[in-house]
Amino acid sequence: MRHFMGFLGCLVLPAALSCAAAVPPDTADREAALLLISTEALARGQAHARLRTLVTEHPGRLAGSAALAGAVRWSEQLLLGLGLDRVWKQEVPVPHWERGAPESVRMVPPAGSSLPIVNLAAAALGGSIATPPEGISAEVVEVRSLDELAGLGREKIAGRIVFFNRPMDPAEPDPGRAYGAAVDQRSRGPRTAADFGAAAALVRSMTQSVSDLPHTGGTTYLNDGRNIPALALSTVAADRLGAMLAADPLTRVEVKVHSRWHPEALSHNVIGEIRGTAFPDEIIVVGAHLDSWDLTPGAHDDGAGVVQAIEVMRIFRAIGYRPRHTVRCVLFTNEENGLRGGKAYAAMVRDSGEKHVFAVESDGGGFGPRGFSLGQNDGPVHERARRWLPLLQPLGILAFTAGRGGADIGPLLPLGVPLGNLLVDEQRYFDLHHTTADTIEQVHPRELHLGAAALASLIWLVDQEGL
Amino acid sequence: MRHFMGFLGCLVLPAALSCAAAVPPDTADREAALLLISTEALARGQAHARLRTLVTEHPGRLAGSAALAGAVRWSEQLLLGLGLDRVWKQEVPVPHWERGAPESVRMVPPAGSSLPIVNLAAAALGGSIATPPEGISAEVVEVRSLDELAGLGREKIAGRIVFFNRPMDPAEPDPGRAYGAAVDQRSRGPRTAADFGAAAALVRSMTQSVSDLPHTGGTTYLNDGRNIPALALSTVAADRLGAMLAADPLTRVEVKVHSRWHPEALSHNVIGEIRGTAFPDEIIVVGAHLDSWDLTPGAHDDGAGVVQAIEVMRIFRAIGYRPRHTVRCVLFTNEENGLRGGKAYAAMVRDSGEKHVFAVESDGGGFGPRGFSLGQNDGPVHERARRWLPLLQPLGILAFTAGRGGADIGPLLPLGVPLGNLLVDEQRYFDLHHTTADTIEQVHPRELHLGAAALASLIWLVDQEGL
Repeated sequence: MRHFMGFLGCLVLPAALSCAAAVPPDTADREAALLLISTEALARGQAHARLRTLVTEHPGRLAGSAALAGAVRWSEQLLLGLGLDRVWKQEVPVPHWERGAPESVRMVPPAGSSLPIVNLAAAALGGSIATPPEGISAEVVEVRSLDELAGLGREKIAGRIVFFNRPMDPAEPDPGRAYGAAVDQRSRGPRTAADFGAAAALVRSMTQSVSDLPHTGGTTYLNDGRNIPALALSTVAADRLGAMLAADPLTRVEVKVHSRWHPEALSHNVIGEIRGTAFPDEIIVVGAHLDSWDLTPGAHDDGAGVVQAIEVMRIFRAIGYRPRHTVRCVLFTNEENGLRGGKAYAAMVRDSGEKHVFAVESDGGGFGPRGFSLGQNDGPVHERARRWLPLLQPLGILAFTAGRGGADIGPLLPLGVPLGNLLVDEQRYFDLHHTTADTIEQVHPRELHLGAAALASLIWLVDQEGL
Repeated sequence: MRHFMGFLGCLVLPAALSCAAAVPPDTADREAALLLISTEALARGQAHARLRTLVTEHPGRLAGSAALAGAVRWSEQLLLGLGLDRVWKQEVPVPHWERGAPESVRMVPPAGSSLPIVNLAAAALGGSIATPPEGISAEVVEVRSLDELAGLGREKIAGRIVFFNRPMDPAEPDPGRAYGAAVDQRSRGPRTAADFGAAAALVRSMTQSVSDLPHTGGTTYLNDGRNIPALALSTVAADRLGAMLAADPLTRVEVKVHSRWHPEALSHNVIGEIRGTAFPDEIIVVGAHLDSWDLTPGAHDDGAGVVQAIEVMRIFRAIGYRPRHTVRCVLFTNEENGLRGGKAYAAMVRDSGEKHVFAVESDGGGFGPRGFSLGQNDGPVHERARRWLPLLQPLGILAFTAGRGGADIGPLLPLGVPLGNLLVDEQRYFDLHHTTADTIEQVHPRELHLGAAALASLIWLVDQEGL
């Protein structure tokens, strides 16, 4: 059993609310407060039901889409319904790319072969330019790395389709690390291939699983008119193409992409806050990103983070907690293909001179929490936070590691803001990352709600005791 | 990047194998050895494919069943195929209970009501006696605890069906703890109800999820001829019955169970070992249980542990590791309804005087590993083991906690053997525990293989350095 005495009376009696700000709570107080938070999150959690609504009504929330605009309205209404002290939107101009009609990749045996033409499961990478309507057909150059590509040189690449086929390392226990070690093929491969005169680029999907789901994602282009169409192949399709090329290097591939770039659109960061009782001008942020890739419901990425950030605010309201610092929920727009929301928020902070004492985000999927990464311009924030581990262990938080936040709050780092990132059990994450399979059915209610409890608990501790 | 130097040459060259026993390896050696283990487990892991075979060919491996006998043969053949130094079976007499034709629970409105009769999803508890063929029909007494039952007394209970309906606490973050706090209703409830003259017992399924899956499990009887039929209701069915009783306390329930007790059967613990080079008479056990409840494929419980224990042996063979102590894989029979396998193994150890230096088991499901519990008659083994955390952290092992082993190895505790238990992320476990839904599709290959890597790594460390 855990202690209920002490802090409980302070929390549930409105007349006594300000006592939270008077003195740091003792151990029994802290345990009682964190128990209130976790009980609210687990026994009366609303995040999973809200996530179902978000991904059912607003799937494919890519920048510029009606779905993202709908998610902006939906989340603003939710925050308004929580009775926060202030809810508003920050305007953010965002890029606007559309996939258009379904893309296709076909594997075409050389003339004279008796083998059939085979369709390969593929998804255009975000931002890919279109092919001509009749597609692009060419021989294929398979490489395992950008270095290998450079070694081949222009003569062997020009006019061909470059196929990046280095798998995410199956022996790497940490899928995020394996992703980081392979994703240069997707992020920089197509542009590098273009520089060598390639006609198009295919990239093996970023996953350790063997599956016929293509994983889209961002790729980096320059604005010089020399970009080329770029698509991800499922790992099954990549293995199949690799095997066919080994059997017959003259195998051709036909690629069709019908995407379109539109003028920039207007989107919004959605923001709600509870004003601090002792330090109203010092702000703690809990954030996530509202947008998703166009082809996915975006349940884990990052619908989960969105509903967790909202849930933190709901929990504080439900238990009657009045934070000492201002606690602000920031739902960023356009993380996936521009990071404009994160950059715009940091610019606002810089320009306004607002003081941010902590920002934490959830963008690793709604799986069971395991820890937090913490960092501040490489300061040892995570080491100081370890004193809280015994308090957070019941929620599955077993470690504080060094880190530098996530994508959305990353632009706050140069402003000296300590950043945190919720770490989760992510073995299943890269099975469905940026795919049509990132659905509500893959999100476990208790795992999602434990994450919300962990975020609320960490913010409570930072609010009460400082980092 | 990690170190490959040093230990690698020692491990892969057969001529140099014995050097592992000569001196404790230094840090780089340890990292290299553990990297060999995790690479073998993740890049070439066979546990998931083997689990698919086990649960497809031998589902419902309850003591006395042909399925369990098949699993005994299958696992013995697997161990023989690994080229271990010795593979054998230990004979174990086991109880033999059969469910028989499908059980049923019907909710029957009182005479004169216009409400329909409703079928409730139910599963006889393991060991339940049968009802008469025509069933038992009676009014229902709903209670939340054994204390409440005792307070009602014989007069209000005799002749009625007792319905234990206290949920596993939804606010408890640790599902295992919530299970432990609710399971007395299943384990002792029916017999206690029988002592007050009840006609039958219904128990709310042991899960925090809201689902129409009934969860079977063990219940404790006395051999005095006064036991009563006992069944689990799904949580949906339990809520439905509770609501109907609130509306009309005269609602009756009709229960049919067609189970049968047979004479004891013969089963086996399946055992395989690699002899130690330095201390062949000192034994390290890695264990799991072969049996499962009759109605489930038993993928997580405990097919996962079985294939992980086998995988530990395969990994050691594949990387050419010759342990200093004898490493023994023990696949226990009859954990679910008798623990005869675990008891027989401990009796053999006691009678033979074999020295066991460590035993570890995996029986918490094949989810992502998070830590180990360790204990030895309440000694601080887990504190000493914490020196290994930096080495095991890449596999997700973030904590060593105090523990007393699992069910199968528990009988070794009085013999002074230090015991370990693989701890996993178990939020999803009690959704499917003891149900038809405990299928291969619920087991993630990488999570399963990380668990095998964690077990092999801990055993390697204990073998090299002692606990």
